[in-house]
Amino acid sequence: MTDILNGYAATAPGALLAPFQFTRRHPRIDDVVIEIEYCGVCHSDLHQVHNDWGNTRYPLVPGHEIIGRVIDVGATVTRFKAGDIVGVGCLVDSCGDCSPCCEGEEQYCLNKPTPTYNGVDRHDGRPTYGGYSERIIVSEKFVLRIPDGLDPKAAAPLLCAGITSYSPLRRWNIGRGHKVAVVGLGGLGHMGLKFAKAMGAEVTLITRSAGKEQEARRLGADHVLVSSDLAQIGLAAGNFDLVLDTIPTPHDLNPYLSTLRLNGTLVLVGLIGPIAPAVHSGLLVTGRRSIAGSAIGGVEQMQEMLDFCAAHDINCDVEMIRIQDINRAYERLLKSDVRYRFVIDMESLKSRPAD
Amino acid sequence: MTDILNGYAATAPGALLAPFQFTRRHPRIDDVVIEIEYCGVCHSDLHQVHNDWGNTRYPLVPGHEIIGRVIDVGATVTRFKAGDIVGVGCLVDSCGDCSPCCEGEEQYCLNKPTPTYNGVDRHDGRPTYGGYSERIIVSEKFVLRIPDGLDPKAAAPLLCAGITSYSPLRRWNIGRGHKVAVVGLGGLGHMGLKFAKAMGAEVTLITRSAGKEQEARRLGADHVLVSSDLAQIGLAAGNFDLVLDTIPTPHDLNPYLSTLRLNGTLVLVGLIGPIAPAVHSGLLVTGRRSIAGSAIGGVEQMQEMLDFCAAHDINCDVEMIRIQDINRAYERLLKSDVRYRFVIDMESLKSRPAD
Repeated sequence: MTDILNGYAATAPGALLAPFQFTRRHPRIDDVVIEIEYCGVCHSDLHQVHNDWGNTRYPLVPGHEIIGRVIDVGATVTRFKAGDIVGVGCLVDSCGDCSPCCEGEEQYCLNKPTPTYNGVDRHDGRPTYGGYSERIIVSEKFVLRIPDGLDPKAAAPLLCAGITSYSPLRRWNIGRGHKVAVVGLGGLGHMGLKFAKAMGAEVTLITRSAGKEQEARRLGADHVLVSSDLAQIGLAAGNFDLVLDTIPTPHDLNPYLSTLRLNGTLVLVGLIGPIAPAVHSGLLVTGRRSIAGSAIGGVEQMQEMLDFCAAHDINCDVEMIRIQDINRAYERLLKSDVRYRFVIDMESLKSRPAD
Repeated sequence: MTDILNGYAATAPGALLAPFQFTRRHPRIDDVVIEIEYCGVCHSDLHQVHNDWGNTRYPLVPGHEIIGRVIDVGATVTRFKAGDIVGVGCLVDSCGDCSPCCEGEEQYCLNKPTPTYNGVDRHDGRPTYGGYSERIIVSEKFVLRIPDGLDPKAAAPLLCAGITSYSPLRRWNIGRGHKVAVVGLGGLGHMGLKFAKAMGAEVTLITRSAGKEQEARRLGADHVLVSSDLAQIGLAAGNFDLVLDTIPTPHDLNPYLSTLRLNGTLVLVGLIGPIAPAVHSGLLVTGRRSIAGSAIGGVEQMQEMLDFCAAHDINCDVEMIRIQDINRAYERLLKSDVRYRFVIDMESLKSRPAD
C-alpha cells in the first residue's frame, strides 16, 4: 500500500477538476482506513470548487458522500474490521467537549466541526481531502456502518442529501397524522418525500413546474402543488405542520409560510444566504409559525437514518458516472439535470492512471 | 341605566379622539355587563386611530385592556355576578369550532376572532367598540376573573401587553436553567423581564441605549446588553434559549439571532411588517435556530397569567391618566415617553359630560 494517493482536485478558482496525487496522514490508533468505492456529488462540492463561499483552500479534493470498504483499522478500533462496508459523511471530527457534541449534535460543534474536505485536521493541522480519491482515513467515531440490504452505491448520497432531509423530520417529530410539504425536487427533495412518507405523514410536493405528478407520486408524494399557481397555494393555506424547503437559491418564503398551520414550521435546508424578498412577520405572528434552519445531522442520527433506510427499503435515486466525467456532471448539476444525485464509481479512477 | 353610553372615539383618519355617544347591544343570555373602571392604552390603539393598518372603521372607540365591575349578567352566566372585578382583553368572540378554538387558542381562530374594537359582532353584525367608554357587554367566555391581590388599575395592561409577553415564554417552556433575552424595554418588554424572572430564567435585557441597568434590574433583569455595542452582542453569541423581541418597528434580527444557542428561538411579538434588513439563513442553519411569531394568548391562558401574577406579586408599571388627556398621551407614546403603560382612569369620563 503506497502512501501516494490518486484523486481529483481543483487547484484554483475556475480550474476544472483534474487528476491529483497527494498523501494522507499515517493512520492513528482510532482510525479506520477505507478504500473508497463510491462518492456522491453534492451541490456544495460545486460551490467549493468555484469558491462561491469565499473559503476554499486549494488544492481541493471534494466529496463527502463516501462509501467504501475497510482495509485496515487502528489498535483501539472496535466497531469495524477489514472488509466492512462503511460510510463517511460531511464531517470527520469535532471538539467532542462542547454541549452540542455532548448531545450527539457534532454538526453544531461550538468549536467548529472538521469538514471531510476543505478543512484542517484538529490534531496535525493538515488539510482534509474528500472522497474524490481512492482512500480516506477517518476516526472510528465518524465512520458509519452501512447495513446489509442497502445498495452501497445508492446509499452514498444518504450521507449528506439523505441526513439533511431526515434530521429535521425527526427534530419536528413527524409521523402519522402530520402533513408535510417538501419544496423542490432535487437531491434533498426527493429524499424528503421518501422519508416523510415512510414516517407516516401525508406528503405534498411543492414544485415550480407542472408535469411532475407521476414522478412525485412514485417517490412518495400524496399531492403535488405548483408554486407558481397562487390559487393552488391559496387553497393550501393553514394546511401543513412542516414545510421542508430544499431550494438552494433565494426565493420568496411568504407563500410557503401561509400554507403552515398553527405552530407550523418552515425549515430551510438548502438556502445559505439572505432571506429575500423580506418575510412578512404577520405570517409568523398570526399563526405562531416559525422559520428554522437545519444542518445535516449528528453521527448517531446518521446511523439511525441508515438503519431506517434498510428497514424501509429506502435509497437514493442515483445516476452513476465515472470520475473522468465529473466536470460534465457539474455542468448538468448547474442545470438541475440529474435524477436525483450523481454518484462516482471510484473504480473508474483506476482505469486511467493519474499522470 | 340608559342605553346611551359615553366614550371617546376617533371619527376619521387624522382626527383627535373626542367625546362620543353610542349604544351597545342589549345583553344576551350569556353576556356580562361591565362598568369600565380602567383601560390601558396600547400602541395598537394608536395605530388603529391613525388607520396605520388600513383597516380602521370609523367611528373607532379604542381600548382592549379593560378592567371593570360586573353590574349585570345574562340568564346562563354562571362564573360571574354583580360586583365582581373582571377583565376583557383584545378579543370578545371567536368561531368556537375550528381547531385552534378547540385547543383554547382563540387568538388564532381560523375564522378570525372578533376583536374588542374595530370588529363586527358575529351574531348581530354591529361594530364592536372598545374600552374608552363607560360600559361594555361581553360574552362570559371572554371575561377574565381578576384575582384578589392584583391592583385592578395596574392589571389592565396585563390583558394585552402582559399576555403577549407571557404566552411565548410558556409556549417555549421557559423555566429554571433557561437563559432568556428580552429586546426592548417598553410595555411588552418590561413585562417580559418580570415574567421570565418569575419563571426562574436567567434574564438579560437587550436595549438600544445605555443607562438602563438600574431600571432593568429592578424589573428582573440579571444582565443588560446594549445592542449598538457589537462587542457586547458578540460576547453573547450562542447564549440564549429564547429571545423575546418586543420591538414594533423594522430592525435587524441578525445580531440577535447570533445570540441564540443551539435550537434557540427568536420570537417576534412587537413587529407587524416586513423583516428587513434580510435575515441570513446561515444563522438559522448553523444552530438549528428559529424565528417565530406569537400573538396575545387564549382565554384560558390569560386567566392562568392573571393567577400567576397574583401568586408572584407581578403587575404592570403604569402611569394613570384622565380620558381628557388621551391625545397628549398618544403624542408621548409616539416618543416612547411612558413607563411603561398609560392607563385611563375611566372615572374621569364622568367629570365632563360628553356634549
